[in-house]
Amino acid sequence: MRVLILGADGYLGWPTAMYLAEQGHHVHCVDSLIKRWWEMEMGVKPLVEVPPLAARIAQFNKVSGEKLSFDILDISTNERRLREILAEFLPDAIIHYAEQPSAPYSMSTLNRAVETQRNNILGTLNLMFCVQHSCSDVHIIKLGTMGEYGTPNIAIEEGWLDVVHEGRKDRVLYPKRPGSFYHLSKVFDSHNLEFGCRIWGSRVTDLNQGIVYGTSTDQTDKYRMWGLDTGFHYDSIFGTVLNRFIVQAACGVPLTVYGEGGQTRGFLDIRDTIRCVELALENPAAEGEFRVFNQFTQQFMIEEIALMVVDVCGGVIDHIPNPRVEAEEHFYEAKHTALLNIGLEPHLLGHSTIQGMYEYVCSHRDKIDTATLRPGIKWKGGGI
Amino acid sequence: MRVLILGADGYLGWPTAMYLAEQGHHVHCVDSLIKRWWEMEMGVKPLVEVPPLAARIAQFNKVSGEKLSFDILDISTNERRLREILAEFLPDAIIHYAEQPSAPYSMSTLNRAVETQRNNILGTLNLMFCVQHSCSDVHIIKLGTMGEYGTPNIAIEEGWLDVVHEGRKDRVLYPKRPGSFYHLSKVFDSHNLEFGCRIWGSRVTDLNQGIVYGTSTDQTDKYRMWGLDTGFHYDSIFGTVLNRFIVQAACGVPLTVYGEGGQTRGFLDIRDTIRCVELALENPAAEGEFRVFNQFTQQFMIEEIALMVVDVCGGVIDHIPNPRVEAEEHFYEAKHTALLNIGLEPHLLGHSTIQGMYEYVCSHRDKIDTATLRPGIKWKGGGI
Repeated sequence: MRVLILGADGYLGWPTAMYLAEQGHHVHCVDSLIKRWWEMEMGVKPLVEVPPLAARIAQFNKVSGEKLSFDILDISTNERRLREILAEFLPDAIIHYAEQPSAPYSMSTLNRAVETQRNNILGTLNLMFCVQHSCSDVHIIKLGTMGEYGTPNIAIEEGWLDVVHEGRKDRVLYPKRPGSFYHLSKVFDSHNLEFGCRIWGSRVTDLNQGIVYGTSTDQTDKYRMWGLDTGFHYDSIFGTVLNRFIVQAACGVPLTVYGEGGQTRGFLDIRDTIRCVELALENPAAEGEFRVFNQFTQQFMIEEIALMVVDVCGGVIDHIPNPRVEAEEHFYEAKHTALLNIGLEPHLLGHSTIQGMYEYVCSHRDKIDTATLRPGIKWKGGGI
Repeated sequence: MRVLILGADGYLGWPTAMYLAEQGHHVHCVDSLIKRWWEMEMGVKPLVEVPPLAARIAQFNKVSGEKLSFDILDISTNERRLREILAEFLPDAIIHYAEQPSAPYSMSTLNRAVETQRNNILGTLNLMFCVQHSCSDVHIIKLGTMGEYGTPNIAIEEGWLDVVHEGRKDRVLYPKRPGSFYHLSKVFDSHNLEFGCRIWGSRVTDLNQGIVYGTSTDQTDKYRMWGLDTGFHYDSIFGTVLNRFIVQAACGVPLTVYGEGGQTRGFLDIRDTIRCVELALENPAAEGEFRVFNQFTQQFMIEEIALMVVDVCGGVIDHIPNPRVEAEEHFYEAKHTALLNIGLEPHLLGHSTIQGMYEYVCSHRDKIDTATLRPGIKWKGGGI
């Protein structure tokens, strides 16, 4: 298949690009590199330096014998070039990772809330129109997040909910109540995309993904020695929680659990992210279908995750005041059978995965910037 | 009370400003005047020429003895000046009309879809942060639309829905499925505002308004001779349906019903819009409360509205192919008791209201541009 990856320079975009290229797909990469600027702005960087996108694509093509191609392009502002790329490359599917991915970033100031919603909503709108204009049969695979749902007191279904109200029935978009301006931007993307399916017959798969952990995929392992690792973030802004806990354990500082730690979330291994995207690719949404998969494999409380890390790596847990506004103890039951039904075989979180991540981090222990581990951004701030 | 009106140059903003000033409130008007540019862009104009905002405020102050003040300002781009105005004026309440108000405009091209969502979402985000920063106790009264709900097969509640799912209960934001990029922008505003209530304790009333008709309020009637009418749009882009039907009847062209005409919508008289806003003002939302009122007084099918106009004014009905993507026959039952419960006494649609509008339009019959009456913008277009 011809696959266009938007946001191919990212934590998930890069290993997805390498994997799909090795599976024999023709992959074209697009990225604006703005995420690297956001990192500079916030004073954080990945554990291991990530070479420029052009350099790592050249290196990957050299050592793998594959042929990734790429364009540097901001889809939120340059719809003209996006349209040209669609017309030239003629993709069968588009994997859309090209969004500002951090809740704390979006909550830090007005300008960053605006930048998050501008980038994410308008980038996705541009994509929708350009696809409709240039290649309307293309399957759009969009990365959303389980955080869009919030923590309702009823079970979380996969995107849609059958309701009975005053004796009448309807199937409605699942009512969402997310917890940051970033998560809100993803809810808005979902609404815009569902509307595109209704009016234009677009084909969309919306992957509401849980919290991803890990740095090891077949390709990052194989090509690590050539500097083709993915960017591993552990800081309190762009790092996901399990990744951060392992870094905290590795450098001997307490694991920072926000508040009680009873927050329950869905999690998945980075290898499963890539496999889920591939499954969506192999099983495209129908014309006019807005299909939602809840993309995670296990549910844990944050406290449980911390205890698992302590169990494998040692260390202590520090319950710090919660910088977010969120329930710290709540009902949580999220359905996630759709991807299993089409063939997902989960990599479950266990001793060996944590041990592997710990060894990886320890081999780069000297590069850890401990100043970036503790949260500095408060949800109640509302900074201008 | 000290009341800041955003979008005070508009169809509803201007009569609201005059009314509240005469009720003894201290009113400061803000508008970017961008709507006037959008009208030029689309080649349409109101039935009667609307003087510049500065001129009509000066004229109103002269003839009424009141003192409206104003600033020309785009809240979607100039949050710095917005913050200054909040700090200087110190409002008790803010009435937020400052949004791109047309579904067809938002559906006409990619750039206009982007402009609609950019203007509306980012303007509201700026407002939320500036209020939180400068005057967090202010009551924000935001104009939404009944169109946010779409046409679900269950009753439409006022913003929130009690659901039972698999034996568990929750109260959720009413699941919405709107029918244009404009309507979607209002859904997104509602989500952002509800989040502001949750994290900052903001006070918000979201008025999901039906289709407004009319041009006659106490103030527009009293000050009409001094050129202080509100802008009356009848074109297929910015005109609401009943207003357009009356203009079509007045100039002897067929009333254009889109498709079957079985589309059911909520309607209200422009006098009731102003009274509803006043009722919200007099009964502020509590700290942290995201309160939603469904602001309309009667439900009609579009066909019924056309027949009522024909009954009073004569004319014929033309069922033209529907430029929109929408159900033309559907269940519709929308609750709207909250405003009645706090004192709304509706002006119901009848012969005399239609007759009054017809006479007003006939007195300006020579100014009607019939070329702008038929819809040129198709929902399925997706133009770049």
